[in-house]
Amino acid sequence: MAEKEKKVEAITAMNDDFTQWYTDVVLKAELIDYSAVKGCMILRPYGFAIWENIQKGLDYLFKATGHENVAMPMFIPESLLQKEKDHVEGFAPEVAWVTHGGSEQLAERLCVRPTSETLFCDHYARIIQSWRDLPKLYNQWVSVVRWEKTTRPFLRSTEFYWQEGHTAHATAEEAVEETLRMLQVYADFYRDYLAIPVIRGQKTESEKFAGAVNTYTVEAMMHDGKALQSATSHYFGDGFARAFDIQYADKNNQLQYVHQTSWGLSTRSVGAIIMVHGDDEGLVLPPRVAPLQVVIIPIAAHKPGVLDQAEQMRQRLSDNLRVKVDSSDKMPGWKFSEYEMKGVPLRLEIGPRDLQNGQCVAVRRDTGEKSVLPLADLERAVDALLDQIHASMYDKALESLNSRVYTAVSGQEMASLLSSKPGFVKGMWCGRESCEDKIKAETGATSRCLPFDQTPVAETCVGCGEPADKLVIWGKAY
Amino acid sequence: MAEKEKKVEAITAMNDDFTQWYTDVVLKAELIDYSAVKGCMILRPYGFAIWENIQKGLDYLFKATGHENVAMPMFIPESLLQKEKDHVEGFAPEVAWVTHGGSEQLAERLCVRPTSETLFCDHYARIIQSWRDLPKLYNQWVSVVRWEKTTRPFLRSTEFYWQEGHTAHATAEEAVEETLRMLQVYADFYRDYLAIPVIRGQKTESEKFAGAVNTYTVEAMMHDGKALQSATSHYFGDGFARAFDIQYADKNNQLQYVHQTSWGLSTRSVGAIIMVHGDDEGLVLPPRVAPLQVVIIPIAAHKPGVLDQAEQMRQRLSDNLRVKVDSSDKMPGWKFSEYEMKGVPLRLEIGPRDLQNGQCVAVRRDTGEKSVLPLADLERAVDALLDQIHASMYDKALESLNSRVYTAVSGQEMASLLSSKPGFVKGMWCGRESCEDKIKAETGATSRCLPFDQTPVAETCVGCGEPADKLVIWGKAY
Repeated sequence: MAEKEKKVEAITAMNDDFTQWYTDVVLKAELIDYSAVKGCMILRPYGFAIWENIQKGLDYLFKATGHENVAMPMFIPESLLQKEKDHVEGFAPEVAWVTHGGSEQLAERLCVRPTSETLFCDHYARIIQSWRDLPKLYNQWVSVVRWEKTTRPFLRSTEFYWQEGHTAHATAEEAVEETLRMLQVYADFYRDYLAIPVIRGQKTESEKFAGAVNTYTVEAMMHDGKALQSATSHYFGDGFARAFDIQYADKNNQLQYVHQTSWGLSTRSVGAIIMVHGDDEGLVLPPRVAPLQVVIIPIAAHKPGVLDQAEQMRQRLSDNLRVKVDSSDKMPGWKFSEYEMKGVPLRLEIGPRDLQNGQCVAVRRDTGEKSVLPLADLERAVDALLDQIHASMYDKALESLNSRVYTAVSGQEMASLLSSKPGFVKGMWCGRESCEDKIKAETGATSRCLPFDQTPVAETCVGCGEPADKLVIWGKAY
Repeated sequence: MAEKEKKVEAITAMNDDFTQWYTDVVLKAELIDYSAVKGCMILRPYGFAIWENIQKGLDYLFKATGHENVAMPMFIPESLLQKEKDHVEGFAPEVAWVTHGGSEQLAERLCVRPTSETLFCDHYARIIQSWRDLPKLYNQWVSVVRWEKTTRPFLRSTEFYWQEGHTAHATAEEAVEETLRMLQVYADFYRDYLAIPVIRGQKTESEKFAGAVNTYTVEAMMHDGKALQSATSHYFGDGFARAFDIQYADKNNQLQYVHQTSWGLSTRSVGAIIMVHGDDEGLVLPPRVAPLQVVIIPIAAHKPGVLDQAEQMRQRLSDNLRVKVDSSDKMPGWKFSEYEMKGVPLRLEIGPRDLQNGQCVAVRRDTGEKSVLPLADLERAVDALLDQIHASMYDKALESLNSRVYTAVSGQEMASLLSSKPGFVKGMWCGRESCEDKIKAETGATSRCLPFDQTPVAETCVGCGEPADKLVIWGKAY
């Protein structure tokens, strides 16, 4: 009974066409399928499992910092969206509008949430009365919709998945502290779960969130040197509180406005994993979010004891790890390619000779390095290898980031760097939006952030040449 | 510094006004808040935490039976919804329509998913080619929207949360098996996690899902004797496969249509918990999904050692349980009422005398029974008590169900029973829709299901009096 084996076809080489490589990977690794609705993606089991692991990791960190999950409606009445002026200006042009329920036209149209500040504020105005009710530290895991013209899976889609934290505090100080705490949670999460280094910083006025006093960001660098805004945390002051009348009685029974924050991380993070760690064989997944951490491939599976041993290994490892045996009738070489394409961090091969020697062969996805593991010590050896894989993936990404952050002292130098070398450029800025616009027009790069490390690299603005004391990181961005 | 304490106000008595009691409970226990959008509820932290625990339990059972999670878009193009005729007729009248994206009118309007059969079918048609691709056992956790005229929190809301499983199989037999397997998973889940007994059965033609060959249901009885359809599982045959052209090459390389199922359980299950277990003090939560399983209340907390012991107890229990100490400055009596309203299964009181005696006092929420637990044996004693609480909540609910299922041999007897006694009525049915309609018109009750136990109770139909061999359970329903 000859059966077709699903062949893992070669993908476009990264350095030939990075955009096509990306598309090949998301499709061939079966992360997504395109849907019948333009710009909306289907997360297939393997892609969704990565997102589930991201959710688990982040949700743990949120709960450890005192946050609770809630669920707000997906619809926002137009009048509610309009309550905060900057916010509605920022979002109204890109929302989807529901105008009919069944066969009836609605008295007021509803937008599908592009973000939920207005819903949280409306709720907070009802449930916050006293200082005893504060802080409110809420989060929700949902999808949101923004009507995008050009879309790419994970990076920019009409509907995307994220978490949005929304908090209300008694004082500005507490709210600022929360904003920065959650930024740090994101930075830690990227480092500890995704093996991705990020640059923490503050957005400029023109790049900040619609309605925020300040927006903070973590920026990561992709393989092609472009930036991905990887999560943001916003401080709102009392702007939304005034627009929505969210007041509490303080300990002296005086009414005060609350101070608020919001912060979000989305399925863009899956795009970051792909574009930071991937290679010409496909995905390379960081072990802590990989749906499958270890795959065991029996070699000469028909030989006595091989399949049994593979199964024993699986059982021993599966207490702590996501592991499977592939005992299908495909050739081992086909299996190797398939799990390489899917980025499984560690492959264990077990054949008759290994059995005799009481060992198995371990192959790292990130480096291709082979090593021999004694079966007697399997659990410890595999744990140690996975930790090594995580650490060296992070180190490699950090080296790739650090080696591609350049410095420019003039606009001309910046343009020349950005057109010749993939990467970020540090340059001083006077603070004027006109200079930011000029750089953008001349180089195609945007200000990614004012990094927390503000060590100056020059004394004059790369835009106008006048004195400048702000350090900005510039880069082309997704 | 005198501070107001939030008083837990009395709620309406169940037997005075069950509807008002329900509303009081969902609001006072802080499960939900009403939102700015009619018919859409906000799940507050305590309400959402119940749903999170339901999700964890069910998701475990789904994965243990080989299912994988995915995420489909929230939008369905009108043309896609229309592909299966029965399905669109059932759902089109109650969907929300998106007609504009940003400022532009869409070429084709999109409905917000009321259920996702059409999206899964569209995807399956693309990804299923060979018998090797089957079965596909997919599930997703999302919210869906149905434009309801009258809404009640958890029971019937415009947007609600659920999981929807969608599977594709090579044969009708396998698909039927899956349909029944998932019905049993639901029945087990209700028994083992929610302490609610259900009646398993098949829906009549007029009550089945739009597009299904057969719909199976688990029906639970609420405190007021009314039925709640608590989860459903549908067998589709190859109807959707033909409409969406989902074919696979079998082992002989012949094209065959797949056979499909879908099955769902929603936030209605939270309504079932409230209405099966609740009492005049508020919620009574089954321990396995309670957000807080044990609350520890220090008595005379200022006395030496009391708070320390309370904290030690918390630490010892929190390895396996969701537990907290309430050391706030409220009076113990206030705290008792508050956690009774919130349905916390077990309260532990620890005061100076308990300390001396090396014990604490345990109070069960379900029965109010007090017992004394030796501190030396705390972990085991609490685990055992929580298991007892679960078991006796289930037994009580089963007794309540069994004692209120009546038998009628005629339409007159059924009408008389249904108007005088809260509960279900067994009666024979000839199979004609006209008889079903007549019963409904005369009694206000609907056919809940043809239970799997078809032991006949008479020989003639309660509608027409002619020979009948089908046993139906009738009841008024939410």
